[in-house]
Amino acid sequence: MLHSKKIKIGIFDSGLGGLTVFKSLATLYRQNTSFLYLGDLAHLPYGDKSKKSIIKYSQKIVDFFIKKKVDLIIVACNSASSVALDSLQSNVPIVGTIDPSVQAVMQNNNSKSIGIIGTETTINSKAYNKAFKNYNIHSIACPLFVPIVEEGWENTEIAHQVATKYLSRFNSINLDTIILACTHYPMLIKTLKSVFHNLGYTNLTMIDSGSAIANYLSTELSFTQHIQTNNIVNLSDEFYVTDTSHQFNELANRFLGENIPNIKLIAL
Amino acid sequence: MLHSKKIKIGIFDSGLGGLTVFKSLATLYRQNTSFLYLGDLAHLPYGDKSKKSIIKYSQKIVDFFIKKKVDLIIVACNSASSVALDSLQSNVPIVGTIDPSVQAVMQNNNSKSIGIIGTETTINSKAYNKAFKNYNIHSIACPLFVPIVEEGWENTEIAHQVATKYLSRFNSINLDTIILACTHYPMLIKTLKSVFHNLGYTNLTMIDSGSAIANYLSTELSFTQHIQTNNIVNLSDEFYVTDTSHQFNELANRFLGENIPNIKLIAL
Repeated sequence: MLHSKKIKIGIFDSGLGGLTVFKSLATLYRQNTSFLYLGDLAHLPYGDKSKKSIIKYSQKIVDFFIKKKVDLIIVACNSASSVALDSLQSNVPIVGTIDPSVQAVMQNNNSKSIGIIGTETTINSKAYNKAFKNYNIHSIACPLFVPIVEEGWENTEIAHQVATKYLSRFNSINLDTIILACTHYPMLIKTLKSVFHNLGYTNLTMIDSGSAIANYLSTELSFTQHIQTNNIVNLSDEFYVTDTSHQFNELANRFLGENIPNIKLIAL
Repeated sequence: MLHSKKIKIGIFDSGLGGLTVFKSLATLYRQNTSFLYLGDLAHLPYGDKSKKSIIKYSQKIVDFFIKKKVDLIIVACNSASSVALDSLQSNVPIVGTIDPSVQAVMQNNNSKSIGIIGTETTINSKAYNKAFKNYNIHSIACPLFVPIVEEGWENTEIAHQVATKYLSRFNSINLDTIILACTHYPMLIKTLKSVFHNLGYTNLTMIDSGSAIANYLSTELSFTQHIQTNNIVNLSDEFYVTDTSHQFNELANRFLGENIPNIKLIAL
């Protein structure tokens, strides 16, 4: 897929965490791209749902995006990427969070021992373990990270202690790479770096879904990067949610650093 | 409703927290009662959903219970009790969490200043404020408490610090009563008591939904209490969920202190 004509990318997540992926892509590919974002708030969080339910919800969103004539679909939800991606039917390419993360690791030749942190569904699915066949994989579910981010507590002493409690399980393992397998986690980056530093990790490569997918579009789909320094949100973008939330505007603002002007409520 | 013949009580919650209510009722009313419990895991947690969605999900559960010929329905979910209870159609009595809590406070004649802690939906609905017209109400949303309980961290230093961060907002207020307006919170009782003690509260009445509802059935519906010291779960009880969860058995065991033998997955 050459990125010379104007193309339309549909991005979805169970909530608003996928806006961190939208931000990474919009920053690099704004020039020839319009975006549709859908947050499936009616079924938030996917992390608690069964594989069967996540496939059903994801397929409805894919069908909606195809009706909207997108050229490419990004599954920005790690839970959906882990359990539903292979089952989704679509006539346009679908990119999840896992293949781009694998590619990002493989570009770093020296990587051998990888830590994965994510929600319980993502970790329990073992999807990342299957994708990284020849690596030592150590994975930890961190269910408190999402509510900590949603409270705006990502840089507090509590966040530091919770992260220390989870990540101390990596203490005696010589990790070289850590994958943030949840779209909320880039918000915690300062705290995570500090905790890993305290654990003795001074040279750890951190991979988040947004930058991994941005890199993947460039190498696998020949997208041309045009770094954009103005607003991330463009008037040609469309934002949809499947349920309302009192927190929506506040969270969207926190994830993007700017407001979303026009959010449409839809039923799927 | 005299409690001489065998009756059937349907209890529902968005998740498994309502099992704390089931436990309170089954302990006191086991003798002449069978229970249906439904955890609407497909839409868990209601705390993130809109009023309209919560009414729709709750009505489907009420209809299911009526088909199952229950004599009484308990809305063990504080979010649903706060925003949906008045809209539900039923030919059997429906009891939520709010009226029983109001009654429990009124039985304590000296109560004047009441603290409410719950999820964001419950607190933002102001349903408790409306129910307590002549009291000073101070309410705080504590969204991290549910995931802390689900992690099994309720008696950790982190739980203590999170509780201190939330409850310190009650610091300069002379509360006499605190309502635990979320069915997960009884699991945190030791930590909450310790934090309130540190804040200088030595004589605070704590009201949880389970014991408030148990008391309400006795005073308002003339249920006769027969304290049961054997197993809480009886073979005549039925347990339903609307989605599966890897955590279900572990959590159910933690909430009840015993296993649930036969859980049925249904679609509503």
